Amino acid sequence: MKTRIISAAVMIPLVVICLIFGGVVFDVLIALVSLISVLEVTSALKKAEIKTFWVLNLIYSVAASIAVYFGSEAWLFRTLILFVLITLPLSFILPKADLKMGVATVFVMIYPTTLLGVFCLAESLGWVYIVAGAASAVITDTAAYFTGKYLGKRKLSPKISPNKTVEGAIGGAVATLVLISVYGILCRVFMTGTIGVAHTVAWLVVALLCGIFAQIGDLFASYIKRICDIKDFSNIIPGHGGVTDRIDSALFTIVIVYLFASMGII
Amino acid sequence: MKTRIISAAVMIPLVVICLIFGGVVFDVLIALVSLISVLEVTSALKKAEIKTFWVLNLIYSVAASIAVYFGSEAWLFRTLILFVLITLPLSFILPKADLKMGVATVFVMIYPTTLLGVFCLAESLGWVYIVAGAASAVITDTAAYFTGKYLGKRKLSPKISPNKTVEGAIGGAVATLVLISVYGILCRVFMTGTIGVAHTVAWLVVALLCGIFAQIGDLFASYIKRICDIKDFSNIIPGHGGVTDRIDSALFTIVIVYLFASMGII
Repeated sequence: MKTRIISAAVMIPLVVICLIFGGVVFDVLIALVSLISVLEVTSALKKAEIKTFWVLNLIYSVAASIAVYFGSEAWLFRTLILFVLITLPLSFILPKADLKMGVATVFVMIYPTTLLGVFCLAESLGWVYIVAGAASAVITDTAAYFTGKYLGKRKLSPKISPNKTVEGAIGGAVATLVLISVYGILCRVFMTGTIGVAHTVAWLVVALLCGIFAQIGDLFASYIKRICDIKDFSNIIPGHGGVTDRIDSALFTIVIVYLFASMGII
Repeated sequence: MKTRIISAAVMIPLVVICLIFGGVVFDVLIALVSLISVLEVTSALKKAEIKTFWVLNLIYSVAASIAVYFGSEAWLFRTLILFVLITLPLSFILPKADLKMGVATVFVMIYPTTLLGVFCLAESLGWVYIVAGAASAVITDTAAYFTGKYLGKRKLSPKISPNKTVEGAIGGAVATLVLISVYGILCRVFMTGTIGVAHTVAWLVVALLCGIFAQIGDLFASYIKRICDIKDFSNIIPGHGGVTDRIDSALFTIVIVYLFASMGII
């Protein structure tokens, strides 16, 4: 627990500083996270006999970071289809490769790399959204842990994540619904001086979805870990496991926040 | 051969009419092609024991078509990440599903659906690009067939596509290089009255890449068919096989043309 707190005490200020500087500093942080996470996910998949063209995944991480820095969604999209066009044919061109390998590589291009790219896209819309996505993940996780500890009775998903309970999941979702909607509404009021019914409802919906998708993101990562028969993606962050273990929920919540923010709904 | 020509005589004018009307008419054509191709690809994969959430793939085809009609790359990108966020968790939420099924569904969202979406994106930039992408596929295929027939000696890829020869591949690439670069340069001259060195070189590069990627696209589809142990994706187009068999090369060439066109290079 002590190691865990010390790691958090290093990590949180680091992320906050990168967010304050913003722009290229934040994008470089995300690029580094992407590179590490790609190595973690591809080596995890390898343990389940799912091979990837992991070098291509690393190159895509760099290319995607450049695309979101100099461009926008359009450039990230173009980078993705370009890499799909390179990756899929390698399945039959390279010796010892197969379709599974090509498709797995495309999967890793999306999870985690493209979803991490969404962090940079969200950052360019405003730090408010990054904080909403990241805080949802932390709040859901923490609230689910404590609700589960004191009230937990029914197992949520015994096969994938045996310690999670239905009561914990509800507690996590409710806490996020309350805190993130209040946060979003307050941000709007502070920034524009007013808030309408539409924005209020939109933040309530976003907060509700974040509380649900934070847990789904967590379970999805656990599901991959179970398939690959590993406990953590790596042990690079003392007390926390791998980078991917740390970002699993936020990878999903940021998409929710981003979709609403990019449409101008929140 | 007669059936093949009659089918072409129906298909080509249909595509040309949709292209002349453009906009929503063209997008509806692509949406229909996407729906049929998704059914073809998912049922082919099923024969190789690769199951998909094919209903979700059909819904994505409709959503992607709406996204490109009302929006742009940004909207297609948002639609894609939204569907990824829905699809991946179903791998562990739905009974009888697994990670392979989720990943295969995401694969089909990209191939063919998102690549077909690129046709609509290219159409919004100008019919010149659609014609370049589609003509590359036809020219490469035809020139490779005849060059291979008269000069073909060495097998190109005996396991995937036993009838193709190295000589045919070179013939196909050279024909496309010549015809598409001339076409592109002429289009530019007719439309702007002049052409610079940069645009000339760009069209030569595009034409060269199209001649190569048309064949790679063809081989990739053949590779999937070999894995699924089928000859054609379906027999919906008499004499030609399935819709996917007809668009396999163009799915790849359109990405090449689009990437250059969207960057304003051609």
